Parts: sequence; structure tokens; C-alpha cells
Amino acid sequence: MSDYRAPLADMRFVLEHEVGLAELMQLEPYRHADGETVDAVLEEAARLAADVVAPLNRVGDQQGSRLENGEVRTPDGFRDAYRQFREGGWNSVPVAPEHGGSGLPWAISLAVQEMFTSANMAFALCPLLTQGAIELLAAHGSAEQKELYLGRLVSGEWTGTMNLTEPQAGSDVGAVKTRAIRQPDGSYRIKGSKIFISYGEHDMAENIIHLVLARTPDAPAGTRGISCFVVPKFLVGADGRPGARNDLRAVSLEHKLGIHASPTCVMSFGDNEGAVGYLIGVENSGMRCMFTMMNNARLSVGLQGLAVAERAYQHALAYARERRQGRPIGAAAADAPILFHPDVRRMLLTMKAQIEAMRALIYLNGAAMDRVHGAGDDAARARAQGLVDLLIPVSKGWSTDLGVEITSTAMQIYGGMGYVEETGVAQLFRDARIAPIYEGTNGIQALDLVMRKLPLQGGAPVRTFLDQMRALDAELARGGADLGTLRPALAQAVQALGEATGWLQAAQAGRPEDAAAGASAYLRMFGIVAGGYLLARAALAARRALDGRPGDQFLKEKIATAAFYAEQILPQGTALLGPVTAGAGRLREVALETGA
Amino acid sequence: MSDYRAPLADMRFVLEHEVGLAELMQLEPYRHADGETVDAVLEEAARLAADVVAPLNRVGDQQGSRLENGEVRTPDGFRDAYRQFREGGWNSVPVAPEHGGSGLPWAISLAVQEMFTSANMAFALCPLLTQGAIELLAAHGSAEQKELYLGRLVSGEWTGTMNLTEPQAGSDVGAVKTRAIRQPDGSYRIKGSKIFISYGEHDMAENIIHLVLARTPDAPAGTRGISCFVVPKFLVGADGRPGARNDLRAVSLEHKLGIHASPTCVMSFGDNEGAVGYLIGVENSGMRCMFTMMNNARLSVGLQGLAVAERAYQHALAYARERRQGRPIGAAAADAPILFHPDVRRMLLTMKAQIEAMRALIYLNGAAMDRVHGAGDDAARARAQGLVDLLIPVSKGWSTDLGVEITSTAMQIYGGMGYVEETGVAQLFRDARIAPIYEGTNGIQALDLVMRKLPLQGGAPVRTFLDQMRALDAELARGGADLGTLRPALAQAVQALGEATGWLQAAQAGRPEDAAAGASAYLRMFGIVAGGYLLARAALAARRALDGRPGDQFLKEKIATAAFYAEQILPQGTALLGPVTAGAGRLREVALETGA
Repeated sequence: MSDYRAPLADMRFVLEHEVGLAELMQLEPYRHADGETVDAVLEEAARLAADVVAPLNRVGDQQGSRLENGEVRTPDGFRDAYRQFREGGWNSVPVAPEHGGSGLPWAISLAVQEMFTSANMAFALCPLLTQGAIELLAAHGSAEQKELYLGRLVSGEWTGTMNLTEPQAGSDVGAVKTRAIRQPDGSYRIKGSKIFISYGEHDMAENIIHLVLARTPDAPAGTRGISCFVVPKFLVGADGRPGARNDLRAVSLEHKLGIHASPTCVMSFGDNEGAVGYLIGVENSGMRCMFTMMNNARLSVGLQGLAVAERAYQHALAYARERRQGRPIGAAAADAPILFHPDVRRMLLTMKAQIEAMRALIYLNGAAMDRVHGAGDDAARARAQGLVDLLIPVSKGWSTDLGVEITSTAMQIYGGMGYVEETGVAQLFRDARIAPIYEGTNGIQALDLVMRKLPLQGGAPVRTFLDQMRALDAELARGGADLGTLRPALAQAVQALGEATGWLQAAQAGRPEDAAAGASAYLRMFGIVAGGYLLARAALAARRALDGRPGDQFLKEKIATAAFYAEQILPQGTALLGPVTAGAGRLREVALETGA
Repeated sequence: MSDYRAPLADMRFVLEHEVGLAELMQLEPYRHADGETVDAVLEEAARLAADVVAPLNRVGDQQGSRLENGEVRTPDGFRDAYRQFREGGWNSVPVAPEHGGSGLPWAISLAVQEMFTSANMAFALCPLLTQGAIELLAAHGSAEQKELYLGRLVSGEWTGTMNLTEPQAGSDVGAVKTRAIRQPDGSYRIKGSKIFISYGEHDMAENIIHLVLARTPDAPAGTRGISCFVVPKFLVGADGRPGARNDLRAVSLEHKLGIHASPTCVMSFGDNEGAVGYLIGVENSGMRCMFTMMNNARLSVGLQGLAVAERAYQHALAYARERRQGRPIGAAAADAPILFHPDVRRMLLTMKAQIEAMRALIYLNGAAMDRVHGAGDDAARARAQGLVDLLIPVSKGWSTDLGVEITSTAMQIYGGMGYVEETGVAQLFRDARIAPIYEGTNGIQALDLVMRKLPLQGGAPVRTFLDQMRALDAELARGGADLGTLRPALAQAVQALGEATGWLQAAQAGRPEDAAAGASAYLRMFGIVAGGYLLARAALAARRALDGRPGDQFLKEKIATAAFYAEQILPQGTALLGPVTAGAGRLREVALETGA
């Protein structure tokens, strides 16, 4: 299997033209960094990802993590790779300097994270979770908790986990039963079982900081009675050193379809006296904590869809350049590689166009988080926050669905060789399949988009985004003939998305079941149309840049890619207007609850 | 994991109303059988599939077939299940009585095959290949070859294989290099390697009859120089008993994503003196032989998509009835099962509607084969053959793509539990993924549809099929209000398919590259629209049947399912008109052959 190479050219293009990096770097929190630093960061990450982390992807899949005598052994090479990752400071890219981080924008950090995830999704899941723990503690932890835990998490010496799920509480976090009993010293004793805990136990770090949702004895039912606790694997002394082993353990690992190297643990807290835990914030404020963590985690999972798709694309492209089979229709040479078969080319371009659209969406979403952080006033902050909130379910849901589709297409290009495990593309397909499920299934994302995000700020975020999409048409009209071809498909799709949005907003208020019935189709529609808009913006930027660099192939292909997407993919978005607005009535006409 | 139950009610409905079984059974070859026989066959198959074959699906996945000292050991229980399958005569259902078969229509045989494939796709692949060998020998074998091999294949005592693929000859069969040297006694000595040979070696039958494509020394290049040989594992004496071991062996088994129980062999022919093979027909007529085998095999692979989807649907439905999580919007009870979440219901109905559409298409395709066989005159035979040829690539390509989508949706309904292997749904997802690849990738199917099938008989088959679809509208108009809702979406979709067809027919003649570029989108469009048409026909039949049985829930749901499909799925077909007709020009604007 060919190597992974970070797509730095497209990353830089997206950062420059979709994200507005130059303007972003003028915001107060980012002024400390210059363009050279950013370049160096991207190039160093690309090297580590390609040279050290990517080669471990296959061995990680084959060996998997194993539980032996209560300890989890990660696959060969993972410990050393993690050491290099930690020593490079890669865990701290987006963390504020006051917490020991590099303080670079999320937009940059996501590019870095994309590289490590393309290289090895199972490996990169560990820092992804640590990142969430950092966010949570930085936002909600006490000064003492920050002092004790934050620095070592930021450095990567310790890693973090999220302990939400229990057998009866998957999507429904409010059903959590794990108990937390307050002790005279102010700490708590935690007792309960958690499932699906990624990296709940492993051998890459000297301590693991579990963030655990639990319920105090007199807590109200449901999500309003959830509290969040820091529960370290090794209790941390006043000197900051890990000391006594806490009363928690990994009971077993799941045997999963993919991401075998990531140990998915069943965790038991309090087999004996109870695990010692420390309350974050106040009792019953656990959901607020979790949402901090979850928002970022959802964006990061969306990024997994993109990252695995990018890796699969690179492999499929390399294979299609080498493999010779049949005489391609229209090809000059009888032994031309399969890349010259129009259908293979169509598949590759579909992958490429969707990948670039996802990258633009996800980095833009991250940049909006940076604009929240760097906003000069409340209005700017609210605007940026609105965009963050609106886009996160789309970034997560749309990109992870595409991750599965694109890795599947890569397998199709390999043909029979893709179905045998040795070529590695099957692993990407298996790995990608978790992303639509965890961090809130894509059905949950769709409900979040329609029920929570559309009504936000009286509908301002979605209205603003739709207005921006509509406004692009006039700019495209001034961009010349090759941009003109984009206009009808994009205008039609944006129009349909606007109608669907209005219909859902009306339904959401009075007929929530109808809105819920259309939610998944709407999320997909939103992703497809936003992707087409972002590619069209990219084409416009490329058109302008071509004035200075008339022969530039990369720029010309940005325009061709946008046009391809408009022709091949946008119509699928437009066609979802009917399905979105069909309502829930039909769903009740088939008695699924009783039939054969 | 819940059990498999054959969907007999829908199978019978499809046979009665889509296939026209009663009329089919009046054709001369089928007059020997009556309705009671057919019922008994379906019920017996359902019992064996559910009770014996289905329980082995998981053990087959976990153990896989293993190669030990040159022998393949199938998983525990497979030998015994195959014995019961053989003793029940299930291998012979569609085979003509003159060859020892039951002589039932393919339409019935496909229903039987669906059950065994739903129960255990890897197991059912063995008789699928035997079936292909029977077809080939019955059509092209000499009297002596039929005498020696056919009876034992029909009885299932022996099994058959197809040996086409070589490392350099996957989709391009003409590139086969295996050599066949004629001997003074008229036999041949075969030397060469074959890959991806399903059930090339196993322990369920006392002999394996390999059908091998090879090239004689002076054969012309390409497909015109391919010959087909019978190469038994054990040479068969004049007494019909297996004797000396032939010079062929399984060298290794592939480690695959799925269908682990099916041994996918690398076969070596002629390590020593050369494997003894017997020419079928004349030299250089191998492709004609293979096409006989491939047509049926392609339909059977399409059936795999349907069958695995049906199994996944049953499991997802059972899970959605049990699992309680979150309060469904619009549900009366807070602890209602997830089935009551509108989005879960949408997923289940999408699966159900597509499965019923596939079943109708595939059984109709099989019935057309029966109408070829039973045609009273050449015109009727040509009409039926035209429909067979037209539909086969659609049955194969569309159904196998849906097989992957639907098993993926089933996993989504299971959530995190679907990603762990123990629930079994991940296996269905892995198993289903081979079907779009083997027996000609779906890209090859699309090219076959556009380049070979649309121009057949001057375009008569596709014209006839489009005319039938158009004619349904008037009947729907007379069917009452609930059928009226289907009309606009179906009419629009049929109209779009007609336009796409005309465009491709024009392109196919003069601009083949443009036609090839749109082929895959067209195949998908054809499948979606034909599926919508067949469901609408089913709704019409249900409407009529409801006059006699006004409260019948099954019939009412047939109408609701068709309406759901028209609202949710048909628009995606209509929207493919643009992608089909975009041409190949854009594909050349991105220099995939050289870029980074």
C-alpha cells in the first residue's frame, strides 16, 4: 500500500481562501504567531504523520490493543509514536498559552489533526479525547483542578477520556445510573459501569484522567441530575505526581469492526471502596460540562470522516495509476491504467470534490470557533457562535457519512484486491464506519440541527448563512464563463435549501414529529449544498488568483472540481427538498411495531 | 441476535402479482408442477434455511474456512448443513427434469435461493457456483460430459467452480494466460494460476468440478482465444466414480473483509505433469460458455444484495422493537422503543421499500428467463430474452449497491452495538461488500447496460420497458386517491429515465466516452425508477386485492410502501438525469494522472 502524504497544497488553499487565515491571525489571541510559524507547524506535522504514525496503521489493525491482566497493551510501535507526538508538542496546538499550549487557531489545529487522523485514525483518537478533557477542564475546572491536571494533559504526559455511555444510556445521557457519594473531605466515591470508553486503559501515558458522568443520591431525574467528575487512574498528590491506584479498571475490550488499535473499554468504577472522584463545577451541572467537550469532539469526529476519506482517496488514486486492466474507452493506449476508464475517473473525482468540500466546511467551522474566541464585541461573538453551533452537526453528520461512502468507493476502485485485507483499503472502510455512530449518531446530529440549531438566535445563524450563499451568485456572474456554469445548479440548490429550512422552522414549532421525520434528509441536503457553495467560493478565489499565475494547474483544477461537483452532486441536494418536507404521516402507515 | 424468518408473504405477493406466476406455470416446461408443489417448496426451504443454515452464519464468520495440508476445512456444521441441503434436492430446483432436476421456474428458484442466502451468504455461494456449472455444461457440454458430470452436480454430490480470474486478468478476461496443451487422447494438460476461486477447495462434497478458462498455444489474442475446460479435482472413471487426484491444488486462501466461511482460493493447475482438462465445445469458444454461466451468476449476485439486506432489515427491526432510548418525538410513552423515533422509522421504511423493490425486479428478471425457456415462438423468445439481458446488469449493480447501503443502515440503527462484532450486523455489512465487486464490478455492469444492452435488438427491450412504465400511469389514475399520490413522482422519474436513455443511445454510437462517463449514474437511475415502477404496480395489485379483503394490513402497507418510495427515493432517480448526461469532458479537466 502506498504512503500517506499530507495534502498541504489544498490545506493551505482552504486556510487562505475559505477560512480567511490572514484576517483570523489579526485577532488578538493569534497575533503572537506569524505565517512562518504556521507553515513550519504544518510541515512538521506532515512529516511526523507520514513517517512515524502512518506506517503503524496496518499493524495497529492487525494486532489491535489487548487486555492482559487488567493492563491494555497497545500495538507495536504505538508507545514510541505517542512519545514522539508528545515531545513534538502536538497535543497542545490549539490550547491557550496560559495553559501551556501553542495558542494557534483551531483552523490550523484541525489541519494538523487531519494529518494524524489520516495517518492513523485509531492512534489519533487518543489525543482527540485528551483534547476534549482539556477543553472541559479549562472551561469548568477549579483553579486547583487546572493546576493538578491541565498542564500534564496539555503536554500529553497524561491522556483524558470521556465516560458517558452505560448500557441503558447511549444516546440518552440522562439515563446514566453511575452513583457518586460525597465524602467528608469534599471528594466523591464513584460506583458504576461505563461502556464504549475509548482509551479507557492503555500503556502510552503514565496517567489517565477520566471525566465521568454520574449521579448524586438526591439528584433530579434525567439530564438535570447529572454531575461531572475528574477520576484519575492514579490519584495525584499535592506534588503533582501520580500516586495510589484508584478503584477503577478496564474489565474487557470490545471486539469491533474497525479501529482495532483503539482500546474500547468496559470500565468498572468502584469494585471495592469506590473510585475517588472530584466534582467539576457544582453538582448537577454535568451536562453543561459535557456539551463543552462534545461540541469539539463532534467537529473532530467529522474530521475523522474527512481524514479517512483523504487517505482512501490517495490509495485509490495510486492504485488507479498503476493497475492496467482492459482498454479504457477513449484512451489512446490499450494498456492505459484504469485511471483512464471514464467510470474510474468519475469515482476519483467524486471523492476528490467531496473531500475538498468537507475540508472547507470543517476548517470554516473551526475558524468560527476561533472567531468566538477572538471576537472584539458581543455581537461578533454571537455571530461567530451561531455559525459554530449551526455547522457542527453538519460537519459531523455529513462528513462521517461521506467517510463511509468514499472509503467504499476506494474499495470499489481496487476491485477484488480491495476486498482482501492485505491492501489496507478494507481497514479504512471498517475504521470509517464508527464515525457516523459515536459522539451522537448522525440521526441525533440531524435532530440537533433541526430542533436546536435552526431556532437559535431567532434563526439568525441559518438566515445569515443562506444569505451568504445567495450573495455568491452575483460574484460568480462576474467571474467569467467557467464560473457561470456553476451558477444554475448552485442557485437552484440554495433556493431548495432555503425552502426546506423555512418548512422545517414552521414544522419545528408546531409539528415536531414532521420536522424530526425530515431531519436526516435535511442534514444531508445542508451538507451537499454548503459543500457546493464552498467549492464555488474556492473556484472564485482560484479564478482571481489565476490572474497572477495564469498557468497554475492546481488553481485551474479547483475550478474544474467545483464545476464537477455542481453537475454531479448538487442535484442530489436539490432533490432532497421533497423528502425533507414529506412529513411524518406516511411513517405511521406501516405498522412496523407489529408486522411480520 | 434474532432469528431469520423467510419473508414468505412478500415473496408470494411478488410471485403472484409482479411475476405473473399463474400464467408462467401454464408454459409448457412448467405445467408439470402445481400450486401446492410450489407452496411446499417455499415452506420447506424456509424451514431448512431458518433452522439449519441461518444458525451457522456467525460461526462461519468467526471460524472461517482454513487451509490445512492442502485441504480446506469449512467451519463447524457446514458439512452437515450441506448434506441436508443436498438431500433435500435444493441444488436442483430450476434444473430441467431431463438433467435430474425439479424443473421449477427460475422465479421460484430465486425465492428459494434468497432464503438460503439470507440465512448464510457464504454457505449459499457454493451451490450458486454449482448452479453456474450446471448451466454451462447443460448448454455447451458434450453428451459424454453431461453423462459424466451433470447428474452429480445436479444432485449436489459434487460442486462446481468458475476459474476465470488471474492476477493480470480480473475484469479483463481476455488477458488470461493459463495454458492448455492438447494431448493425443483428445484431453488437454492445463498449467497456470487462478485467483479468487470461491470454493476452489473444500470438504463438503466428494468431488469438485472446475470450469477453467485457458488458452491453447496457437489461440488468437484476447477474448477470441479463450477456451473452456472441465477440470475435475478427482478424475472421473468410465464408471462415474471419482478416481485419481488431478494435478491441481489450492495454494492459499485470501484473508477477506467478509464471507469468511467461503474459501477464496489461489489455485495452481499443473504443478507437475499438468492438470487433465476436457474441452467444452470447440477451442476458442470459451467466452460463449462463460457468458452462459455469468448471466445467471450475475442475477444470483444481485440476489445476494437483496438477501443480505433482508436479513439486516429483520435484525434491525427486531432491535428497534426492543431497544428503548430517549423519548421519541410524538410518542405517547417516555420509554417507547426506538422504533417510534421518526428517524429510526424512516430508516426502517427505506430499507423495507428498497428490499421489496429489489425483490420484484430480481424475480421479474428470473421470470423473464423462464419465459425465454417456455416461449411458444421466436418473437416471444426474443422479447423475453431482451428483458433478461436488459435487466441483468441492473439487478446485479443496483441491488448489490443497495445491499451495502441497507446493511450499513441496519448498523446505524444498532448504534454502538452494531459496531461490535457480537451483534452480527457488522458481519452482514462486511459480507455484503463483496457483491458490488465480484461477477463484474458494478462499473462493468453499468458499461454492459449502456454499451451492450441499450443497443440490443435496435433498442427494443428498453423501449418496451419504458413504454410499460409509462402505461402504468393511466392505470394508477383509475386506482383511487391513494394511488394518485404516486403518479407525479413516478411520471417525472420515468420521463427523466426516458430522456437519459435517449441521450445515452445517441452518445453510445458516436461519443462512447460520454456514454461511459454517465453509465454508473444511469444504472442507478434505472434501478431506482424501475423499483418505483414495480412498487407502484404492486400498490395497484394491492388496491385491487383489497376489494376482496378490505381490512388486510399487508395489502394496505404495500400501498403505503410504494407511496413512501415515491416520496423519498424516486426524486433521487429523477435528479440523476443531469449527472448521466454531463459527458466526459469535465473528467479530463483534472489531471489525475500527474497531480499530487
